[in-house]
Order: sequence, then structure tokens, then C-alpha cells
Amino acid sequence: MSTPVLDRTAQTEHPVLDILADRWSPRAYDAETAIDEAKLASALEAARWTPSAYNSQPWRFIVARRGTELHRGVVSALVEFNQAWAARAAVLVVAIAETADAEGAAITHAVYDLGQAVAHLSIQAHSNGLHVHQMSGFDPEKVRELVGLEQRFLPTTVIAVGDLGSADALPEGIQRGETAPRMRRPIGETIIANA
Amino acid sequence: MSTPVLDRTAQTEHPVLDILADRWSPRAYDAETAIDEAKLASALEAARWTPSAYNSQPWRFIVARRGTELHRGVVSALVEFNQAWAARAAVLVVAIAETADAEGAAITHAVYDLGQAVAHLSIQAHSNGLHVHQMSGFDPEKVRELVGLEQRFLPTTVIAVGDLGSADALPEGIQRGETAPRMRRPIGETIIANA
Repeated sequence: MSTPVLDRTAQTEHPVLDILADRWSPRAYDAETAIDEAKLASALEAARWTPSAYNSQPWRFIVARRGTELHRGVVSALVEFNQAWAARAAVLVVAIAETADAEGAAITHAVYDLGQAVAHLSIQAHSNGLHVHQMSGFDPEKVRELVGLEQRFLPTTVIAVGDLGSADALPEGIQRGETAPRMRRPIGETIIANA
Repeated sequence: MSTPVLDRTAQTEHPVLDILADRWSPRAYDAETAIDEAKLASALEAARWTPSAYNSQPWRFIVARRGTELHRGVVSALVEFNQAWAARAAVLVVAIAETADAEGAAITHAVYDLGQAVAHLSIQAHSNGLHVHQMSGFDPEKVRELVGLEQRFLPTTVIAVGDLGSADALPEGIQRGETAPRMRRPIGETIIANA
């Protein structure tokens, strides 16, 4: 019997787009289905059109499909807890910030703009029925070695992308995370000054 | 006569949501209309529900409406070029990263997650007909003094939010920016490894 998954739609206090309210970060990926390449291409295209400081576009991606050597390499860079569930996702995308240009000049907003690009990628993927879960728990140096990245490129997150599977296939401790309601502090605590 | 504004919809190679393809960063804000408070609240609510590493929610905002002392203070922190157009927008939002917690422990993905939060804010605002333009050109220390920010908080961008006005009301050099097509490098140059 399948573990029931709660309605994880955000309990918003002001109306927001369904695509933002419904998005959440699962761990129970379907370990069989291959990625829908058209949907993956659309998600990457959405990232492409993200705004950035001086249109510097300081983002790069590694795209690793389950079953490939590249995918095994990315999995090996994850912390153990993440390996237990993220290896199941059809694709792992490594999100990389270009922190300096080829001449060595700093790109100050690279990590910020990378965050924006991954948000666009995630929203597009979710709108096409894919699920996205970002991870900070991995070793950037292992990723760097894997593809021979220059120092000016900073692997920042690894993103699991794929279809939702059954929570029953996950280890017990990981299953529990699939049913908790989404929580955020009230917006009033986020606004420092308001006039 | 109004300067004609080009169709600035992105020329995407793969289908993406209209809300992502249509979004662009204007400078020709309407200098008269006050912000629609319900739309502003929805944009901030969208930011609230952004994912973040360990759900740390490392974002804070200053919300400054045109005509207030706070708004004048934020305008004064902008570089001169940005002051010339951004002071016209109904609201300036300062996006602030919480780079360490109250005990001094680093929040490593704060700037990245702030970028995500501002992307969510922008997409929600745009879907409600507001326009958003992010700026990195400002003095973070001036903003810090303005509201007495602790060092662990990093003012990262200032975001103009409001209605679109006539490009004719802008200085000549700034008007030109309103009609350029949006350009991005091909996605193939963004993907470092693909398997």
C-alpha cells in the first residue's frame, strides 16, 4: 500500500500562482522512468532567459542522466543521506556559478543570479509535471575534478529532476519527509523596514 | 507620441511558460500610480514560499514606497544612473541575504537562496501586471546605515516594482534600453557536460 502523501500546497496568506504554491521538494523519485527530454529542454531554456546583472548569465550546468558514467560521478559527490534518494531521480543537474570571467574579473552577483536561474528552471519543470529537489549537501571539489572545472566556476547545488514515485520505496527515515506540511515564517518577520 | 516598445518576448528555442518568456526588466516606470498593495503582498508572499537550503529562508526585505523618507534613503544609495529612472517606480525593495545566523554560524547558500526568492517575487509580480527591474548598482553600506543592519545581513540587490509608464518621460540614453531585443547565449554554451 502506498504511503499517503499530504496535500503539500502552501497555506498562503495572499494569493500566489498555483505553480509557486504547489511546488515542493520531494525525495520519492520514480527510479525507472527516463527523463522526458522535451520537458528537460524546456526547463533549461527557462533558466537561459533568467535576468542577471549586466546580462552576465553567470550560470553553467552539468546534466547527468541516470545510468551514465557522469551520473554515477555526480552521485558519488553527494553526501550519503542525499545519495540514498537522489540517485533514483532520472536526472541530476549540477548548478555552477561563474564567479569570475575568463580574464579573472569578479562577477559579484554570480551565485545570486544562479539562484534565480535555478528558480526559473524549477518552476518550468514543475509546470510540466516534473519534480525538482535542490541539494547543497555535496562535495564541490569532487564535481570540479569530475569535469575539470576551472577555479572560477563554483558548483553550488545539485538538482534532482524527475517523476514522482512511491514513498514506499524509500528508507523509513527518508519517507517521513514526504508527508510533512510546508512551513515558512510569517512575512512580517522577513520585512525589516516598511514604509 | 509614445516611443514604440518592441515585442520583448524571448525568442525561445523550446517552449517555456509565458510568464517566463514575457518577463523583462523595464526602466520606464509610471511615476504617478501608487503600488497596488494586494499585488505587492502577493509578490512578497511568493518570495516567502521559495525553497532554501535546510529551509533556512535566508532572505529579508526593505519595502520602500515612493514619497516616503525610507524611499528617499534607498534612492540615495543607488548609483546615479539608476537614480535617474528607478526613483520613478512605485516601490523599491531591497533584497538582503542573511549570510550568518544570530549565533554567527555561516548560512552558505544565503545569497543563492535570496536570488531564488527574488525570482519568485518577480514572477508573481509580473503575473499580476507589475514590472520588476533588479539592480546591483547601489551602495550596500548606505542601505546598512539607513536601517541599522547587522553585519551578518548583506544588502544584495535593489528591486524597482511598479507599473509601466511612457519611455518618453525618460532621458534619451535610458529610453534606448527599452526597445532592445532580449539576448542570451545558446543553451549549448551553458551546459558544460551532458550525458
